[in-house]
Amino acid sequence: MSGRFTTPRETLLPVLAAVKDVIERRNTIPVLSNLMLSVTSDSMRLTGTNLDIEASASVEGQGSEAATTTLPGAMLHDVVRKLPEAADVEITFDEQTATIKAGRSRFSLPVLPASDFPIMSGHEFGHRFALPAKELATALATVAFAISTEETRYYLNGIFWHLDGEGLAMVATDGHRLAKARLATPEGAEGMPAVILPRRVVDLLSKRLPDAKDGTIAIELSETKIAFDIAGLSVIAKLIDGNYPDYMRVVPTGNANLFRFSKPSLKEALDRVSTVLAGSSGQGNGVKLGWNTGPTNQLTLDALNREHLGSANEAIDIDPLDSAQVEIGFNGRYCQDMLNAAPGDMMLAELGDAGSPALFRPEGQAMPLFVLMPMRV
Amino acid sequence: MSGRFTTPRETLLPVLAAVKDVIERRNTIPVLSNLMLSVTSDSMRLTGTNLDIEASASVEGQGSEAATTTLPGAMLHDVVRKLPEAADVEITFDEQTATIKAGRSRFSLPVLPASDFPIMSGHEFGHRFALPAKELATALATVAFAISTEETRYYLNGIFWHLDGEGLAMVATDGHRLAKARLATPEGAEGMPAVILPRRVVDLLSKRLPDAKDGTIAIELSETKIAFDIAGLSVIAKLIDGNYPDYMRVVPTGNANLFRFSKPSLKEALDRVSTVLAGSSGQGNGVKLGWNTGPTNQLTLDALNREHLGSANEAIDIDPLDSAQVEIGFNGRYCQDMLNAAPGDMMLAELGDAGSPALFRPEGQAMPLFVLMPMRV
Repeated sequence: MSGRFTTPRETLLPVLAAVKDVIERRNTIPVLSNLMLSVTSDSMRLTGTNLDIEASASVEGQGSEAATTTLPGAMLHDVVRKLPEAADVEITFDEQTATIKAGRSRFSLPVLPASDFPIMSGHEFGHRFALPAKELATALATVAFAISTEETRYYLNGIFWHLDGEGLAMVATDGHRLAKARLATPEGAEGMPAVILPRRVVDLLSKRLPDAKDGTIAIELSETKIAFDIAGLSVIAKLIDGNYPDYMRVVPTGNANLFRFSKPSLKEALDRVSTVLAGSSGQGNGVKLGWNTGPTNQLTLDALNREHLGSANEAIDIDPLDSAQVEIGFNGRYCQDMLNAAPGDMMLAELGDAGSPALFRPEGQAMPLFVLMPMRV
Repeated sequence: MSGRFTTPRETLLPVLAAVKDVIERRNTIPVLSNLMLSVTSDSMRLTGTNLDIEASASVEGQGSEAATTTLPGAMLHDVVRKLPEAADVEITFDEQTATIKAGRSRFSLPVLPASDFPIMSGHEFGHRFALPAKELATALATVAFAISTEETRYYLNGIFWHLDGEGLAMVATDGHRLAKARLATPEGAEGMPAVILPRRVVDLLSKRLPDAKDGTIAIELSETKIAFDIAGLSVIAKLIDGNYPDYMRVVPTGNANLFRFSKPSLKEALDRVSTVLAGSSGQGNGVKLGWNTGPTNQLTLDALNREHLGSANEAIDIDPLDSAQVEIGFNGRYCQDMLNAAPGDMMLAELGDAGSPALFRPEGQAMPLFVLMPMRV
């Protein structure tokens, strides 16, 4: 099968960049390093897949009769990227080779038949709804840090989307920390299944959301797949096939000791005392936080490097709200991640005792919320 | 021994950053991860060493009687860097511990006795001269890419400084490519020994040269060591103890085929055709250059990836100057490195046959010069 397509570099490059994002340069299955090109007389559709995520988009241009092929995606992207900005790109292909010409440059790349290219089939999406792109981007960015990387608990390797009675909740946890955000339930989402979006889909969605036209993004869901379309890039992806644990069991509800604190102040102090922990991991990352009520109204931070006996301490001012003193240890890095993800400047800590999960949230907001498990330090 | 010193963070930080550059955070000899602090009533001198390079500098401030200690350099730098900008830093130390205080932060770091800290001794420098900082920086940047990283030929792991009859020459080669630059012989350099500056000294010098006051830098040389002082940072370093090969043997003198070409054009074309070589190394990096005389007056570039049979070709216009046609292969990456290092836009290629070393230089200048060994492609 042979075909031909011509289009300006500036038209082709952004589409190519978006579609090749889902493929990997080196692959044990060679055709998965390739992009599929489907040419018609006035457009070319590019498709990339890693078997879990399939992305495709079209470019306009002048083409031959309908024809398809596949060629190395990363290399095609590099070639087009390095061409002069104003160049017109001509792609011709037969059963052996694709030729890319622009100006005085000429590239020849090996092809594989489109019949070997795996396309996801049988999409039936029972649920369609639109989400505000900016709010969705914020929610994903707020909870993504808590996604587990532990492969044995694969059902934690993503963000859990579900209706929690008050809205569309998005939750991530790795068992040591948990983050939850919530959007208003969009029209059409009633009765949607609870699903787990894999990290790679979260990353792709987060990267593309700023391109969303009209500020909204259309989502389609089934029990096993999600589909969305952002500025012409169509994505279909498999969801994680597993049961998300009942995370509400670890979200404390009766923590009686409330403290109001400045997020930037705690971030800076934590960053400084963590300096002496450099190179440590696991238990070595512990920072002891002393939440003191009057007369000092201070939060003290203590870090100790057991390896070389360096130590650091610091204090910041806080507002105890109807509280008793609490001394509690956390993994300093987890605490820092949480502060980086939390919105706003003033936050509330809701603490139990030294052995209980601690709850954090922005002052005056129910969501997002964060849970940190305590750590013996 | 106990001591104390106080100085503003903004005074201490840049000095600390410069001195700690020569040490490594992790070290099999613990004291080499430390900086030595020598306190007097009105200044503190900081010294770092890796046994090959010793750097030191002083800061002004309020100190105790004379006292010395050593403490972890990277950690001290991190601590000071993270303190608020306007902070005053107070360092106190005894035989076990150093304490760093600023505002409400307090750090305790373990110390090692200054008596364990290795200081280079017995400096006798027979040769002193000043070099223009900007010209020196340019010369180092022009030849450094050709420094060998092969440890077995340790004498190639640096830049060879020597008087070549026309000036102070600086040469680097790894046997596949060679670069040479030259400065005017400075007053006081007559009779200086030929020396080899190790790569790490070249890097340190290059990084610090922009700080040089008055646009000059004072150099002191002996057979075995080099010393220089840039904006208060004093450096003493060992030279490479070896004989540099007679590099002039590989610099061709009778290449009869001259071609004038545009460096930016060749760079871009080479970058594009190299795309198909992605992931290759060694022989796989070859690019064939066809230097054609009239009627085309073209340089053709051909690259072939033998692994997957992708290929690329391109042509740029050149000016043959009294030449015959030459077809010659080079390692594309070495050719690219050379073009990146060369000054100016128009260059001359002086070529022999397909098996001979090729000479390149900027049009109208004898120096710098570059030699590339040919490669069968």
